[in-house]
Amino acid sequence: MLERFKPKSRDTKRVPVESLYEVVAAVFEKMGVPREDAEEGADVLTMTDLRGVETHGVSNMLRVYVEQYTSGQINPRPNWEIERETPGTAVINADRGLGIILGTRAMDIAIKKAKTVGVGIVTMNNGAHLGAVGHFSMHAAKQDMVGMCATSAGSGVLPTFSAEERFGTNPISIAALGRNEAPFLYDAASSQIAGNKFTLATRVGSDLLSGWIADEEGTPIMNETPVPEGGWYGRLLPLGGTRENGSHKGYGMIMMVEVLGALLSGSVPGMFDSEKFESGYKHYFAAYDIAAFTDVDEFKDNMDGMLKMLRESKPAPGHERVLYPGLAEHEDEQDRRANGIPLHTEVLEWFDSTTSELGVPALKTM
Amino acid sequence: MLERFKPKSRDTKRVPVESLYEVVAAVFEKMGVPREDAEEGADVLTMTDLRGVETHGVSNMLRVYVEQYTSGQINPRPNWEIERETPGTAVINADRGLGIILGTRAMDIAIKKAKTVGVGIVTMNNGAHLGAVGHFSMHAAKQDMVGMCATSAGSGVLPTFSAEERFGTNPISIAALGRNEAPFLYDAASSQIAGNKFTLATRVGSDLLSGWIADEEGTPIMNETPVPEGGWYGRLLPLGGTRENGSHKGYGMIMMVEVLGALLSGSVPGMFDSEKFESGYKHYFAAYDIAAFTDVDEFKDNMDGMLKMLRESKPAPGHERVLYPGLAEHEDEQDRRANGIPLHTEVLEWFDSTTSELGVPALKTM
Repeated sequence: MLERFKPKSRDTKRVPVESLYEVVAAVFEKMGVPREDAEEGADVLTMTDLRGVETHGVSNMLRVYVEQYTSGQINPRPNWEIERETPGTAVINADRGLGIILGTRAMDIAIKKAKTVGVGIVTMNNGAHLGAVGHFSMHAAKQDMVGMCATSAGSGVLPTFSAEERFGTNPISIAALGRNEAPFLYDAASSQIAGNKFTLATRVGSDLLSGWIADEEGTPIMNETPVPEGGWYGRLLPLGGTRENGSHKGYGMIMMVEVLGALLSGSVPGMFDSEKFESGYKHYFAAYDIAAFTDVDEFKDNMDGMLKMLRESKPAPGHERVLYPGLAEHEDEQDRRANGIPLHTEVLEWFDSTTSELGVPALKTM
Repeated sequence: MLERFKPKSRDTKRVPVESLYEVVAAVFEKMGVPREDAEEGADVLTMTDLRGVETHGVSNMLRVYVEQYTSGQINPRPNWEIERETPGTAVINADRGLGIILGTRAMDIAIKKAKTVGVGIVTMNNGAHLGAVGHFSMHAAKQDMVGMCATSAGSGVLPTFSAEERFGTNPISIAALGRNEAPFLYDAASSQIAGNKFTLATRVGSDLLSGWIADEEGTPIMNETPVPEGGWYGRLLPLGGTRENGSHKGYGMIMMVEVLGALLSGSVPGMFDSEKFESGYKHYFAAYDIAAFTDVDEFKDNMDGMLKMLRESKPAPGHERVLYPGLAEHEDEQDRRANGIPLHTEVLEWFDSTTSELGVPALKTM
């Protein structure tokens, strides 16, 4: 993450991962979620914070989930079921279950199919928020798969040249492992920034950068600009920002997710019901069994060789080193497992009032 | 394509598609390619020009193919074979056959598998240039599939912060059809521009735009800049351009293609042999059988509804309308089928000298 969007250390306190996990699981249980599912949700959220993916960890998301459980938008005990199935594919109706809890199960089905026919694709309709999609790609990668996951959700992103919002941020992720190098894990919105970056920018008091959003008529704002007032994100530009800089490509990636996630889950594109969003969130999970394609050992050697070569590339002036997707997050994880997860005081205040209100043990700080 | 990179009409003449097809097929035959394969190659190249995809049609590519057949880099009569196979996957050794000729066959295998197990993935190693990857996605889309295709090829693209080139432009494509709307067909390099845009910019005498390439030390050039001297492309930035503008996401997409195309074809990433490129080009083909996921009629209704809604979105000031990927190309196709394909005089000169040299009938102009 760009330095200016990281909370300043004077504004944060570190919390031990075990305490965070326990508190999050307890909060989920208070929402009516069965213990096993609550633990799954706590695992995904704390893992996301361990990896430094601030936007999709507890800071922004847990309060949203609590609100959505409370309002009935998320079903704490979903009767999810497979609606359509072939040896290589399955379509799941999530019954409004939270994606971060059901995601691993969907990917497990994809993995099982991949072990049988080489590749497994699972789509999910009628869902709720999936969190950091990279988590599920990584789940597959740990089982000698190439894992991919994407989600079609919400609105707030403008097609190139459009004054009207038509898409969610439609993030895409892929993960694959070598042996010695930190995992390759790419996970990012197909828009200029993730929707949660708005919340984050507000919390840390930073403006949005040039080319990230458009003005109210749809013209890209080409200078730094304050986060627009009024809550949730909007007027976001596709990756690239302007047409000259390739926003038609970001737009294409966003539509790729819309087709794979929403339409191939038997649902409608989000733009059909962007007012009430009755069709829910739609997700896409893919597992490629490496052994179906090549020797697993050779694949891992090639991954390690590639990642090392990237890491050791000569950096451009002004940069200390070349990163690859997943490397900084892996380093964050080592640090945070040892030293705790830094949470902004605003987030800690939310935890204090929520745990007190729900009658669960308070979050410990270090 | 941006207006400034289109050849000016005073510099072009139109040629009838039938003549172009016949001449291209005859040139391929002179290269030692069997008639059936030559027709396949001519079909892909003329279709690409019909769709206005100037960068990957005859203008840039046919001369490259002629050079590569002549030097022995491409095998005119490849004994391509399936090296590894499961019900949902296949890995093909292309025996250095030209991708534009073998691509449809690879996608046909993916489609056949998708009809059996819901999804089919085919990768291809030891290949040659694949042309416009969207052609093969479209081939699948015409058979009630969602088609995807990508290719890992060459070097010349810098990872974010890197002074050293590590990747090809790694284009990705996806195609899906409704009934009434022009096809959704996304096909674009994962770098800021396609490598062939260098050739095109040189031909039409246009500078490259801000944020497209880096200087020799790897720092993004943030103003318009002439095409660097010395032939083939290089120092290209990933989609996004700068880190602030999301180039780490373009970098991630490029690596996605590297893993799916190169590593899952049992080959090495291009960066391992970027000097001699002995491992050849590597390709990825995917077909999703729509019927395995949902009702085909419903899917097509949703596609049409989505594409229409995008097309009818209110445009931002200064823009006549909102496009979607594939719409402008579909309109070009209608125009060019009726009125011929415009080719730059520099290209026509190449055709004249080449057809004369090879002893094949000359290209007709309109």
